[in-house]
Amino acid sequence: MGLKLYGFSMSAPTESVMACLAEKRIEYELVHLSFSTGEHKSATHLAKNPFGLVPVLEDGSITFFESRAISKYIAYKYKSTGTDLLRHDNIEEEAMVGVWLEVESQQFCPAIDAIAHQILINPFLGLPTDQSIINANLVKLHLVLDIYEARLSNSKYLACNFFTLADLHHLPYIHYFMKTPYANLITSRAHVKAWWEDILARPSFIKATQQNNNIVG
Amino acid sequence: MGLKLYGFSMSAPTESVMACLAEKRIEYELVHLSFSTGEHKSATHLAKNPFGLVPVLEDGSITFFESRAISKYIAYKYKSTGTDLLRHDNIEEEAMVGVWLEVESQQFCPAIDAIAHQILINPFLGLPTDQSIINANLVKLHLVLDIYEARLSNSKYLACNFFTLADLHHLPYIHYFMKTPYANLITSRAHVKAWWEDILARPSFIKATQQNNNIVG
Repeated sequence: MGLKLYGFSMSAPTESVMACLAEKRIEYELVHLSFSTGEHKSATHLAKNPFGLVPVLEDGSITFFESRAISKYIAYKYKSTGTDLLRHDNIEEEAMVGVWLEVESQQFCPAIDAIAHQILINPFLGLPTDQSIINANLVKLHLVLDIYEARLSNSKYLACNFFTLADLHHLPYIHYFMKTPYANLITSRAHVKAWWEDILARPSFIKATQQNNNIVG
Repeated sequence: MGLKLYGFSMSAPTESVMACLAEKRIEYELVHLSFSTGEHKSATHLAKNPFGLVPVLEDGSITFFESRAISKYIAYKYKSTGTDLLRHDNIEEEAMVGVWLEVESQQFCPAIDAIAHQILINPFLGLPTDQSIINANLVKLHLVLDIYEARLSNSKYLACNFFTLADLHHLPYIHYFMKTPYANLITSRAHVKAWWEDILARPSFIKATQQNNNIVG
């Protein structure tokens, strides 16, 4: 039985998992749920993920949720296929992948996602945009990106000199953030800009975003 | 060269790593930094963790930061010692450890930590307590704990019927939260309460909190 991925079009965490599957050259069935009809809150979907979120991955009898758990599982299960996203043959590099995966999760994503949510998601949901939330998170994101700039002046990618899952997890969040008026936070930092342009050109991500957004859920 | 852990007393992420080391029965040197003199913002510490946070773990030539990255590294490196925190001999259980580690990180911790921060940390820093932040996060935490209650009615622990790293990561955060006026969110749910009392009694956590708080940093 093959892999089955449930997601939304225009969903950053869904695209993160799709890019990971593409890096690993793994075939799977993509099932788009309809956000507008609330399919993610149906009893069928809540049985897969009690939080009513996407993506969800089914691999035989095992059902996964939380995008970072899914992509780590894929990267580990298929560690010898496609891109080595975990650097599992080098103890030091593997350790740094673990560290920078958590930096994305704890330091980077909360700030960038809060900004993108206010600007891109709230209008879609008919909710007002709260500029004070945007401003508070711009301060946080500036500090995080200053650290990224220093890191990327010494290392081609975040964890080491190779593209890893830690870089990949940033891709969809920055991709959406670049549609906000604050894209200069990325482009004004030379090393962050070069890193962003490099990872944005990954065929895996191009494939994931094209495949995900050709179908409107 | 042995392990060296840098942390603060009264720090939830430091205690999380200490409990993990205790579950694995690993010896290490504990170095308390002084929060009041800003030792975590010193050049020496920033060279270890550019975010100026604790804990930091040194293992020979490798320096780690982000508590969840550190405890996952320890659980994986010492997987055959002490408690099996990853359930690495059972594919389904190991997969669910991965999922519930991310649930703690993405759904549980942001809500509970925001509440504890307002009530316990802000007064310590001379900052006002923002009741609107508390209220918004109480709504989120209620929803998360309803899902935990359902999960724990079918499973002794979050990932499976064995105590894992996914449970351990909750320990210090709930421990501090129980000192707030909202402890009834835990005690009013029968299965969450039983789970909490069970994991609170782990000798590893008792040892970690005693060891960490006997020294004032």
